[in-house]
Amino acid sequence: MADSIPQACDLIIEAGWVVPVVPHGVVLTDHAVVVSAGVIVAVLPVADAHARFEAKETVQRPDAALIPGLVNAHTHNPMTLLRGVADDLPLKVWLQQHIWPIEGAVIGPGFVADGVTLAIAEMLRGGTTCCNENYFFPDVQAATYKRHGFRARVGLPVIDFPTAWASSDDEYFDRAGEVHDQWRDDTLIRTAFAPHAPYTVNDANFERVRMLADQLDVPVHLHLHETAQEVQQSVEQHGQRPIARLDRLGLVNDRLIAVHMTQLTEAEIHLCAERGVSVVHCPESNLKLASGFCPACALERAGVTLAIGTDGCASNNDLDMFGETRTAALLAKAVANDAAGFDAHEALRAATLGGARAIGFDHLVGSIEPGKQADIACVDLSALETQPLHNVVSQLIYATGRHQVSDVWIDGVHKLRQRVLVDMDLDGIIANARQWRDRIATVRPA
Amino acid sequence: MADSIPQACDLIIEAGWVVPVVPHGVVLTDHAVVVSAGVIVAVLPVADAHARFEAKETVQRPDAALIPGLVNAHTHNPMTLLRGVADDLPLKVWLQQHIWPIEGAVIGPGFVADGVTLAIAEMLRGGTTCCNENYFFPDVQAATYKRHGFRARVGLPVIDFPTAWASSDDEYFDRAGEVHDQWRDDTLIRTAFAPHAPYTVNDANFERVRMLADQLDVPVHLHLHETAQEVQQSVEQHGQRPIARLDRLGLVNDRLIAVHMTQLTEAEIHLCAERGVSVVHCPESNLKLASGFCPACALERAGVTLAIGTDGCASNNDLDMFGETRTAALLAKAVANDAAGFDAHEALRAATLGGARAIGFDHLVGSIEPGKQADIACVDLSALETQPLHNVVSQLIYATGRHQVSDVWIDGVHKLRQRVLVDMDLDGIIANARQWRDRIATVRPA
Repeated sequence: MADSIPQACDLIIEAGWVVPVVPHGVVLTDHAVVVSAGVIVAVLPVADAHARFEAKETVQRPDAALIPGLVNAHTHNPMTLLRGVADDLPLKVWLQQHIWPIEGAVIGPGFVADGVTLAIAEMLRGGTTCCNENYFFPDVQAATYKRHGFRARVGLPVIDFPTAWASSDDEYFDRAGEVHDQWRDDTLIRTAFAPHAPYTVNDANFERVRMLADQLDVPVHLHLHETAQEVQQSVEQHGQRPIARLDRLGLVNDRLIAVHMTQLTEAEIHLCAERGVSVVHCPESNLKLASGFCPACALERAGVTLAIGTDGCASNNDLDMFGETRTAALLAKAVANDAAGFDAHEALRAATLGGARAIGFDHLVGSIEPGKQADIACVDLSALETQPLHNVVSQLIYATGRHQVSDVWIDGVHKLRQRVLVDMDLDGIIANARQWRDRIATVRPA
Repeated sequence: MADSIPQACDLIIEAGWVVPVVPHGVVLTDHAVVVSAGVIVAVLPVADAHARFEAKETVQRPDAALIPGLVNAHTHNPMTLLRGVADDLPLKVWLQQHIWPIEGAVIGPGFVADGVTLAIAEMLRGGTTCCNENYFFPDVQAATYKRHGFRARVGLPVIDFPTAWASSDDEYFDRAGEVHDQWRDDTLIRTAFAPHAPYTVNDANFERVRMLADQLDVPVHLHLHETAQEVQQSVEQHGQRPIARLDRLGLVNDRLIAVHMTQLTEAEIHLCAERGVSVVHCPESNLKLASGFCPACALERAGVTLAIGTDGCASNNDLDMFGETRTAALLAKAVANDAAGFDAHEALRAATLGGARAIGFDHLVGSIEPGKQADIACVDLSALETQPLHNVVSQLIYATGRHQVSDVWIDGVHKLRQRVLVDMDLDGIIANARQWRDRIATVRPA
């Protein structure tokens, strides 16, 4: 019988549990994920996997759970080099007296490449396989992510004043077009427009962003309704709350990746749901900068696509998606006054499929399903800290530390193998970070 | 010269950094802690340590920071065996349909001893050296903590209804007296009264607690103002908010360890400050159960002793004091609308000296000072996740995972050595937790 001849494949990953995210709420016990040419071809009981497939490589992780690789939906990854450089300060002092002067002294292709490299290593070690990047020098970011085989949507910055990246409106758009062109057909790296925020981008530039985003078919990645002050200032200056102003400018649609969103009326929540806006919740950044509370439960209930982001390491101070998702799950309940709100499965979905949907990668990744790329994280649950194991998904969200990630694959390529970075020089990256510390120390304000 | 003969000591711990907590805000570089007979005898530059002392053992940790052992100021540690058994449920359903039926089926000395043992291993692996325990069978708890050389204040439960521990008011107090007597002179284990909560303890029992706590000179460890419903119910039933009722009963004083405190007026905050009440902030439990937000910044500003607790693993779901302290530091800022509030040094102090003060152990532990017991945690900061290292205390609070704790000492005894539990059987504890999972599975409600 033809059926009895096993089909060749590249990789079988056997695990104690597989949490595919789609279908929602499911935990498969003693299952295997079969991968060929970077694509998931089957998810089935371990016993069936070897009857149906013959693999070049089999990885066995009986004490671990496989989950889709985590999607960090809002990062400023070059700022990893500024981790903890200034903390516990009012936003304005932090930015104007610390971050901007330091950035002014060090920003450039070298800083961006080294910061992104450090971030990739940190993300891989924490089960993250994809990020939505927002910083200057997207050309350097894209090349760095590509070099390390890391999936990313890189933002093309637009801001009303000159920076090291561009000195005029036209230059921002010209450079954006060039970077987009270079990566338009890439399978790993794509672009988005990244107008900085409503208070730093004028109407004309927003209109240009809208037109070009439509033409190039890319998302618009924007800090939005981050603080009450932002909303207040917009009302004073434009006579409208920022989201209403963006709606007037044609930007409130399913391209919009709205980051933060701590200040929302019921009507605004429903507008986001109707228009297909995605919201990236960055709970730890919102707490640390005292920005406010994103109504995650209300957004989830309204049907808005909810994603999780760590924000940059200068404000957070890590790229720990396990920690961030846990904070999101905990905080949502208190904000909604509902202990049953935003449960562990919903939180895991936001950190995976939600992020993939928000950034337009959900046809590729975000769940462990046949046909999707094999972006997978393997989480060891045998540690004392996750014992006894009454409930796999509860444990993943409420008790697991990112250091329990044992393995990571992107496009079926083994990137982290039993805690070891397969193709990155860990010691070299750390040594390089130390050099940046020394250099930054010479330019830090007293 | 007599001065030039080095003094004999047991242990010199050299570290890249020592954060002594007292004095506040200080980070010592390349310092050593000298220990003799379990007591810290000196904190001084590494170079001076070997000139002045001759040690039986020297431990060198150039990439690590020494901090006082963390004090978990509110635990229900036997419930570690129920980690994740029921989550994302309204409080009443969670308690009445899940936790209580399971506890009813399994509670007893075996459950308490095994749960506490699992908890001790988890706490040591996360840098915690002391806890304030609140559960049934304090006799078993105390013996278990003592057997493992772990510092604890064990609560003597008082509650208005029969439990496996005692069947009448008199029996609660009789058994409390017996347990207290057994440990009254111990150097590691002490007791506190632990009346459960205002809604489960009547006036007569509170008055008895007050009298006995004064006589025996022990603290009173109490869940207080945890939820708005608790406050509302007290107003309806007693015509007073719980703290006012406790004041009428003579309990609002410097013996009181008030846990949760999410519902506080300005006047109540000042009352706590005036009377020397300590507040244990359990931010993750408060978020997860949608209980509310403790005003940590306002308490800190008012001069109230603030401590941090994880609460029990059935509701939290871990004993991670790094995670809990980080959540406290982040959340406090958003609640106070002040990004400069409850800074990293204040957070570290709450997690160490604050906890020690709250539970009346600050003459013994809570800081790295000569004369105190050597309860010390050593945290490796060389990991990629804490690089570059611009600021040691920022990194400890905002970026460090508990798995970066390399070593722990209690009374100068090495309990965790480069991630290995020195005198506990890790595999045996995990195997035992798995047996409890299987047993609990048979009694879990469908």
